[in-house]
Amino acid sequence: MFKINTQLKNKLGRAGVIETPHGNIETPAFVVVGTKGTVKALTPEQVKNLGTQVVLANTYHLYLQPGDEKVKAMGGLGKMMHWDGPTMTDSGGFQAFSLGAAYGEKISKITTQPRGDRRGMSLKGLDGCVPRKGLPREGAVVDGGEASSIDPVMKLAKITEDGVEFKSVIDGSTHFFTPEKSIQIQHNIGADIIFAFDECTSPIASKEYQREAMERTHRWAKRSLDAHLGMRFPSALFGIVQGGRFQDLRKESARAIGSMDFAGFGIGGSFEKEDMDTAVGWVNAELPENKPRHLLGIGEPLDLFGGIENGCDTFDCVAPTRSARNGTLYTRDGKINIMNAQFTTKLEPIDKECGCYTCKNYTCAYLAHLFRAKEILASTLASIHNLYFIVYLVKEIRQSILDNRFSEYKDDFIRRYQA
Amino acid sequence: MFKINTQLKNKLGRAGVIETPHGNIETPAFVVVGTKGTVKALTPEQVKNLGTQVVLANTYHLYLQPGDEKVKAMGGLGKMMHWDGPTMTDSGGFQAFSLGAAYGEKISKITTQPRGDRRGMSLKGLDGCVPRKGLPREGAVVDGGEASSIDPVMKLAKITEDGVEFKSVIDGSTHFFTPEKSIQIQHNIGADIIFAFDECTSPIASKEYQREAMERTHRWAKRSLDAHLGMRFPSALFGIVQGGRFQDLRKESARAIGSMDFAGFGIGGSFEKEDMDTAVGWVNAELPENKPRHLLGIGEPLDLFGGIENGCDTFDCVAPTRSARNGTLYTRDGKINIMNAQFTTKLEPIDKECGCYTCKNYTCAYLAHLFRAKEILASTLASIHNLYFIVYLVKEIRQSILDNRFSEYKDDFIRRYQA
Repeated sequence: MFKINTQLKNKLGRAGVIETPHGNIETPAFVVVGTKGTVKALTPEQVKNLGTQVVLANTYHLYLQPGDEKVKAMGGLGKMMHWDGPTMTDSGGFQAFSLGAAYGEKISKITTQPRGDRRGMSLKGLDGCVPRKGLPREGAVVDGGEASSIDPVMKLAKITEDGVEFKSVIDGSTHFFTPEKSIQIQHNIGADIIFAFDECTSPIASKEYQREAMERTHRWAKRSLDAHLGMRFPSALFGIVQGGRFQDLRKESARAIGSMDFAGFGIGGSFEKEDMDTAVGWVNAELPENKPRHLLGIGEPLDLFGGIENGCDTFDCVAPTRSARNGTLYTRDGKINIMNAQFTTKLEPIDKECGCYTCKNYTCAYLAHLFRAKEILASTLASIHNLYFIVYLVKEIRQSILDNRFSEYKDDFIRRYQA
Repeated sequence: MFKINTQLKNKLGRAGVIETPHGNIETPAFVVVGTKGTVKALTPEQVKNLGTQVVLANTYHLYLQPGDEKVKAMGGLGKMMHWDGPTMTDSGGFQAFSLGAAYGEKISKITTQPRGDRRGMSLKGLDGCVPRKGLPREGAVVDGGEASSIDPVMKLAKITEDGVEFKSVIDGSTHFFTPEKSIQIQHNIGADIIFAFDECTSPIASKEYQREAMERTHRWAKRSLDAHLGMRFPSALFGIVQGGRFQDLRKESARAIGSMDFAGFGIGGSFEKEDMDTAVGWVNAELPENKPRHLLGIGEPLDLFGGIENGCDTFDCVAPTRSARNGTLYTRDGKINIMNAQFTTKLEPIDKECGCYTCKNYTCAYLAHLFRAKEILASTLASIHNLYFIVYLVKEIRQSILDNRFSEYKDDFIRRYQA
C-alpha cells in the first residue's frame, strides 16, 4: 500500500504515496483531525478545498457518542460525515487513559513505581498538541472534553493484562477496552487505516515501568493483529511503537512491532521537540522502510520538519484547529493572536502570501470583529487558514524532497518563522 | 427601482423586481439576517448557494461593534463580509429601545400613560421572531445579546423630540441616536437599502401614546429623508409606517409616510398572526403601489403567506437561523426538533423533498449526533436547511403568483404544514 518516490540523502525522510480504498495519500501528509466525525467548524467540502487528503477521527469519542454501532448503521465514518477521501481512526488507547483520568475517584493506575517518584510530573508535549501518551496538564482542555484538575497518581484508568477500564467523559459510566474490542469498534467505524490498541505511559515513568508497559503493548499489538486478521476486514492496521525516551526500549519496540504483519506503524509517546531527532529517529531506523509511519499527535511547523526528516510519513494534531478557535493564527513569520488590538484596523489578510480561502477574501480587521463578536464564522475562517497553512506546508516539504532541496527549504522556513 | 410583474386578483399581493446597485431582488423575497455583518454560522458562499438574494445587517449592532467607521474603512458592509449581492440595514431604532432597555437603572421611557395601564404587558410577537417594535420578553434572547429580566416601565431608553438615548449592550456606555445620526451611520455601513429612524412603541400602549409616537415617527421620517437626500448617497431610503393596531392610525401613518419621497417602505410593529390581514393590509392599501414594501421582523411560513397576499414584497427575520441553532428545523409537515430521540437512528434527511445541501448530504442521525456533541457544524447544517426552506418557500410563492395559482399553493402548503 506504500510506494516511496524519493529518499532524502543521509536522512530517514522520504516522499511517497499511501494507497487506500478511498484514494491515495501523497506523503509526507498532514492528517486533519475530526475527533467526533466532523472537523470542527468546517464542512467536508471546506476540508477538501483547503487541500486535506485524509481525516482522522477518534475511536474513544465515537464509541461513546454516537456509538460505533450507530456509525456503522450510518454507513461508516466517511459516509456518515460526507467525506469521500481516506480516513483513519486511532485506537482509543490514549483517550481511555487521558480522558478517563478526568473522572472517577476510585480508579488508579497500577504501576510498580513508588508514589513519590511520580509527583510533580509535568507534560510539556508539543505546543498546543495533546500529548498522545500521557496525562493531560491540569486544567488543560483536552480535545472533545474538559479535563478537570487531576491528581496524576490516583485518578487514572485501571490497566490489566486484558485491557483498560475507564470512565466516560459524557456520563461517567464505566467501560472496558481490550485490543479485540478496540479493533471491533474500529471495524464498525470503518476507517481505511486503523491502529492497534496500546498502553499509555507517563513520560517520566521509571524505565522499569516503561519496559513493563512496552511489553504489554507488544502483546496487545499481537492480539490486535490477530483480531483484525481474523475478521478479514479491508482496513489497514498499523501497529504502535512505544518505549518512552529510552533508546534501547525504543529500538526494541520498533523491532518487535516492526516484525509483525502490520500494514504500517504509529509512533506513540509524549514528545518534546528534541525527541524528533532522538526517539523518532531511533524508531524509524529500525522499522521496515517499505511501510508508512505515522507520528501520533504532532503538528507544529518545526516538529513537522523534524518528524519528516527522521522518517515519518503522516502526522495528525488538533493544534491547527484548536489554536484557530482561540484566535491564534499561523503565518510564515510566526504565530499571531488576532485578538491583539492592532488587527482591528488592519485591512490586509492574515498572511498576504497565503492562498487560502480566508486570506483571499477577508481582512484581519473583519476577523478581529468576528472574534470579538464571538461569531461562529470566526472559528470557520480561522480553522480554514490554520489547516491550509499546515497542510500546505507539508505539501511544500514533500515537493522540496522530490526536488532534492529539503534542507534549503527547511532552513529558509525556520529562519523566517523564528525571526 | 421597483417593477411589478404580476398582481394578485382581488388582493394586494404582487410579484416584482427590486433593482439595486448590487443586483436585482425578485420579490416576494425573504431577506436573510446577518446581524453583525455575518449570517451566523455560514460563509457568504453558503448563504448565496442556498438561494439568498439579499442580506440585512443591524445598524445598532454594527455601530457598537466594530463601529460604523470601521465598517466604512473596510469598504462597507458588502465588501467587509465578502457578500457581493444586495444589502440592507435597519435603522437601529428597534434595538436602541429593546436592547437598550436591558441596561441602565435610571432611564425611563416617557409616556403620557399612567403606570398601572402598562403593567402585565406581554409581547407575543410571531413565533421565534423578535418583535421589532416592542419590548423583549423577560429573559428572552434578543438577537446579538441576552436581554435581562426587564421592568417594562423603568428600564427603557429615553426618548426626546430630538432622538433616543440608550445604553450599549456591550459595555453599558450611553449613546444618542437621532434620525440624522442613524442615516449617517447607515451611510457609513453602506447598504443598498436603508431605513428611516422610527420610534418603538409597545403594542399595548394607549391610543393616545401611539398617536404621539406615530406623529414623532413622521417628523423623524422627514428628518431622515432630508439628511439622506442632503448627503446625495446612493442608498435607497425606505420610510417606516407605524400606528400600532389602530386602523385609523395605520392608515394615517401610511398616507403620511407614503406621501414622502421614499424609495420604498417598511412596516413596523409587533404583529400577531391576525395583523397580517388587518394592520398590514390597511397599510398597503394606502401606500403607493409602485414602490416596494418591507415587513420588518416577519418570517414564519404562515405569516409569509399572509404578508405576501396583503401586499408586502420583502421580509426579514432571525427565526430560521436562531431556530436552527436550537435544533428546530422546518419541514413541509411542520417543525421538528432534531434533539428528539427518534432522530438518532433516522437514516434519512430532515426532509426527503428538500433540495438543500444539508438534506442532500446528511442524515437526521448524523445531525442528531452533531447537536448532541455540540459541534459547530450542527449550527451550519441546520441554518442552511432552515434558510433554504424559507427562502425557497418564498420563491415558490412568487412563482405561484406569476402562474396565477397563489391560493391553491397557499392552501396546499398550509393544509399539510398544519396537519
